[in-house]
Amino acid sequence: MSNFFLDNDDLRFYVDHGIDWDALVGEVETDGDTFSETSEATDFYRDILELMGEFSASEIAPHAAEIDREEMRLVDGEVVVPPRLTTIFEKIREMELHGMCLPREMGGMNCPLLVYVLAAEILARGDVSVMTHHGFYGGIAMALMTYSALEGSTEFDPETMTLTHSRFSREIAEIMRGDAWGSMDITEPDAGSDMGALRSIAEQDDEGNWFLSGQKIFITSGHGKYHIVICRTAGSKADDERGDGLDGLSLFLAEAYRDDESGQRTRFATLERVEEKLGHHGSATVTVNFDRTPARLIGEVGEGFKMMLLLMNNARIAVGFEAIGLCEAAAAQAREYASVRQSMGKTIDRHEIIADYLDEMDTDIRGIRALAVKAAFNEELSNRRRIRARYLTADGSEPQAQLEAEVSELQWKSRKVTPLIKFISAEKAVEISRRTVQIHGGSGYMTEYGAEKLLRDAMVLPIYEGTSQIQALMATKDNLLGIARDPMEFLRSMVSQQVTSRIVSDPLARRTARIRRFAQEAQVNLMLRILGAKVSGLRGKPASQWKAVLSDWDPKRDFSPALLHAERLTWILADAAICEELQLQAHAHPHRRELLARYSERAEPRARQMLDTIRTTGARLLSHLGRSAPSGQLGEVPNQTEARRDALEPAAAAR
Amino acid sequence: MSNFFLDNDDLRFYVDHGIDWDALVGEVETDGDTFSETSEATDFYRDILELMGEFSASEIAPHAAEIDREEMRLVDGEVVVPPRLTTIFEKIREMELHGMCLPREMGGMNCPLLVYVLAAEILARGDVSVMTHHGFYGGIAMALMTYSALEGSTEFDPETMTLTHSRFSREIAEIMRGDAWGSMDITEPDAGSDMGALRSIAEQDDEGNWFLSGQKIFITSGHGKYHIVICRTAGSKADDERGDGLDGLSLFLAEAYRDDESGQRTRFATLERVEEKLGHHGSATVTVNFDRTPARLIGEVGEGFKMMLLLMNNARIAVGFEAIGLCEAAAAQAREYASVRQSMGKTIDRHEIIADYLDEMDTDIRGIRALAVKAAFNEELSNRRRIRARYLTADGSEPQAQLEAEVSELQWKSRKVTPLIKFISAEKAVEISRRTVQIHGGSGYMTEYGAEKLLRDAMVLPIYEGTSQIQALMATKDNLLGIARDPMEFLRSMVSQQVTSRIVSDPLARRTARIRRFAQEAQVNLMLRILGAKVSGLRGKPASQWKAVLSDWDPKRDFSPALLHAERLTWILADAAICEELQLQAHAHPHRRELLARYSERAEPRARQMLDTIRTTGARLLSHLGRSAPSGQLGEVPNQTEARRDALEPAAAAR
Repeated sequence: MSNFFLDNDDLRFYVDHGIDWDALVGEVETDGDTFSETSEATDFYRDILELMGEFSASEIAPHAAEIDREEMRLVDGEVVVPPRLTTIFEKIREMELHGMCLPREMGGMNCPLLVYVLAAEILARGDVSVMTHHGFYGGIAMALMTYSALEGSTEFDPETMTLTHSRFSREIAEIMRGDAWGSMDITEPDAGSDMGALRSIAEQDDEGNWFLSGQKIFITSGHGKYHIVICRTAGSKADDERGDGLDGLSLFLAEAYRDDESGQRTRFATLERVEEKLGHHGSATVTVNFDRTPARLIGEVGEGFKMMLLLMNNARIAVGFEAIGLCEAAAAQAREYASVRQSMGKTIDRHEIIADYLDEMDTDIRGIRALAVKAAFNEELSNRRRIRARYLTADGSEPQAQLEAEVSELQWKSRKVTPLIKFISAEKAVEISRRTVQIHGGSGYMTEYGAEKLLRDAMVLPIYEGTSQIQALMATKDNLLGIARDPMEFLRSMVSQQVTSRIVSDPLARRTARIRRFAQEAQVNLMLRILGAKVSGLRGKPASQWKAVLSDWDPKRDFSPALLHAERLTWILADAAICEELQLQAHAHPHRRELLARYSERAEPRARQMLDTIRTTGARLLSHLGRSAPSGQLGEVPNQTEARRDALEPAAAAR
Repeated sequence: MSNFFLDNDDLRFYVDHGIDWDALVGEVETDGDTFSETSEATDFYRDILELMGEFSASEIAPHAAEIDREEMRLVDGEVVVPPRLTTIFEKIREMELHGMCLPREMGGMNCPLLVYVLAAEILARGDVSVMTHHGFYGGIAMALMTYSALEGSTEFDPETMTLTHSRFSREIAEIMRGDAWGSMDITEPDAGSDMGALRSIAEQDDEGNWFLSGQKIFITSGHGKYHIVICRTAGSKADDERGDGLDGLSLFLAEAYRDDESGQRTRFATLERVEEKLGHHGSATVTVNFDRTPARLIGEVGEGFKMMLLLMNNARIAVGFEAIGLCEAAAAQAREYASVRQSMGKTIDRHEIIADYLDEMDTDIRGIRALAVKAAFNEELSNRRRIRARYLTADGSEPQAQLEAEVSELQWKSRKVTPLIKFISAEKAVEISRRTVQIHGGSGYMTEYGAEKLLRDAMVLPIYEGTSQIQALMATKDNLLGIARDPMEFLRSMVSQQVTSRIVSDPLARRTARIRRFAQEAQVNLMLRILGAKVSGLRGKPASQWKAVLSDWDPKRDFSPALLHAERLTWILADAAICEELQLQAHAHPHRRELLARYSERAEPRARQMLDTIRTTGARLLSHLGRSAPSGQLGEVPNQTEARRDALEPAAAAR
């Protein structure tokens, strides 16, 4: 009997050894009654993952082709869900999995979110679109719980440290029972990644009730009941004077419909269409029309963007695990086919190119998972501690300031790698599923073999929850702003990597340090280009204004020359972060050293190329785009490049 | 009115300036009557391409979504063709385009094949699957004509140098009228790229008649009448003792069916199924069963593989043009969308990452086209001169030896780049169409916008007519065998590139030389690994045998360590060949210098990375695969790498 947890040694490594469960369980099991020690809790988590592994392998994966074939349709204003999906979600409901991470006192299993994302990966391996829809049950319930806690509408019992009431208790309970699910409604016809351009409106009547009007498109699982909707509060303008139109956004919870006791449905928001998509057919993507739809404000007016980001960080990490699950499915299918298909007198997994593909798939999956697990761990710890800081330390029982510093540190760590994970996992899912098609040769192009379905499913991953390009821009801006704000700290870190890359005796540690240094050198290169433009902007300005100009950084205005290379920098940053995480693992678990060796062997030339490309290309295109850059500096690039290249050249080369 | 020829300045460059039309027209227009000078002929070709440009833009492209939606079905053993395709091919027949390259004396337009491939690109931009099916009219007619000429069953009038009769005149005429088309039947269930494993059988009865039996799968346009089939002649074995089972293969022409005057069809080969494919829906892919199907031998028994290769070289160049056409469609759609879609206060083509994508698409398309045009030109000239050498110089009117040397030289040039074109054009078609999806964001994933259709269509290009991996293996083996056979010549060329890369004053010429040197260094690196294995194979052998061992090269046995890096080497070889071709163009047409600058700017870091990856990776995987390589040598690689890397590091870098 196939089991997607038990057959995966890398996944089991995390449950058995690779996670600091003591810290997490300590934060989650606040009542102290349920488990007498951490290992009891992890035994329970292992049981759940094993159940998921069996469920995905036996109840989802065998039906992936059918799920793909049966598309959703809109009939009389409602989405008709194919019977196979209904059956699958009925089983998930029976297993009570929607409450996996909800508190025990609300009827949930009280698992850490980390267990949820590992389960997400396992489900996604069966079918990524099923996982996506599944995520809009528990994910939305957890989001509502978190929002309630953060806005202060949750009550905790400070004795038992358990939750006694949330403003959204009714909705959470309904979702946990499997009777409803929710969605995140952001995108509009003229505003995708650019949230400042959103135009849907929230208006308040004289009694203070809110009503939403506008159209939201491409809403995943938007045929559900509960919609977390971001809207412009009346009076604020899109792309307003303050530059980005984000301050006028607020977050709302709207019920799209209500069923009376006879099952008669009244709709407050209507469904206009279901998209026909390239893949991802187990998940409905709909257009939702709001027309004075009643809604409740979440948090304060104007906090919409901030609140949405909170949800999005978790969602992006979850997409990382979805992507890993899809990669696992593709890699497994590729391995299986290559181990039986004969060519030139041997199975094709013995052909060098195919062996190289299979090895790279395996290495990438393990590397990305290492970073994703760490990010999920940090994000969860920071969120849980933030809520604790808000509710449980007001009485002085814990040193508030210390806890808040911890939270900031953890959150910073998680936020820094989230765009890297979303970026690299989605890009690799496309690459790996494409190679799975290719390994199948002609059969890969035929629907019968299921390889092409994986590619079609994968293609949404670099698009939804923020495109790869948006992730790259975020990562680039964050990193460069960090340097601009504290250049000395950055220089200190560069020197330290330089020392490590030359002096440390472990060759793998040296290699990791080199990859980090490539990232730093890329950042330096980009910063210098930006500075050059900034300095040239001082011309004609009195020297008394220089300091003000040079200390005022606005990514939108100043960083454009660097944005050209944002994706390339992001590749290096992701590879560096993965190698560093694997280095930590190898230190604690020597058998992980082999993975570090495999990953960094491939990452190093890739990172070096990205740095090389950043250094040597783009001047022509930037000047074409009318970006300012002192022509002298750009003119010099080719010469410097050439000089360095000559140094590369090869009396010493590997002959 | 949109026109896919007139709107394409790069395509028009070739018709107006970029091709040595005098040479080609001189070879094609042998009667000397039709055109008084070359420019009259090129005016005629331009008219045809303009007609094609309008036809593709107005009669194909607007229906691409419909062509994609309407799949082929098998009903009562025949493929049912959707009405839109029937209409399109009816129009092609009316324009008499199936005879574009057939001799005037057979009723054709007597165009060079080069005009045909340019037209193929234009048609493919409308819909690549329509182009593919279209190719199985004229392409098969031309193949039959060529086979007849090569086997000696064609008669020429030596006075007018025109063709008077071919063994396949009847079939060619039928195809030219649009009443039939053909197919190339190679693949079988257990033999795709590995032709040595083919098992279909050709048997001869007592009267010398041939009959074919076996199953051919994935046959593009295999629902047609004329099948060029490769079969094992009875008695020979698959994967025989001589190593590859290729000598037992022969080529046949089989009629799959015949219609009597009342339209009643008798089938000699039956259709078993039509594949459901990821895309490419205007082209049927069928399974053909032969069961003692009468057939005619083409050429001699045992010449099947050689004859098929002849056809495949042309077919692979044609796939290159198909891929370019698809790239043009994708790039045009991406440009169009990006020029109107607003984000963050400007159209997204002003966003750096998107601008970079669009610029790279444009640069790649022009670069690949340059190489493809040159290959098609050389291939055509060599084929035409070979036939002339066979038929027209026997009387001593031309110096036979000189002509044959020219033919060999041209053919060698064309064969050398054909796998590079097939490889890079197909890979880039996937990359470009994938980026077109990505540029569309959420809309790209929806079928409505047509972007995802281009990716689905593109995905077959790296698979059919020999996968990308097969192209890479061919290119690698050819190149390394060349070095093994004449190392001194290779060394001379290396020295010359080294000199050029340092001394020539033109920086672009130096860059081109550097890219070529990266290719050479990669070859040296791979050769040394191979030699290492070979030398270690001398152990225990008497010195008297060394010379024999070292001069006996068998790619299958000796080259495996290098095959791991075949794709990487092929990328460098393709980039080097493209830069060299663009360098030649820039020399003759100074305005092409800008393209050389753009292409080589991107190619250089890519080529350097490939070389870097070849040098620094793979030892672990090769030893895992059980390949022999002296462990000392592989063990040294990391150290040497590290030394070189330190040299790379960057007191001198571009800060």
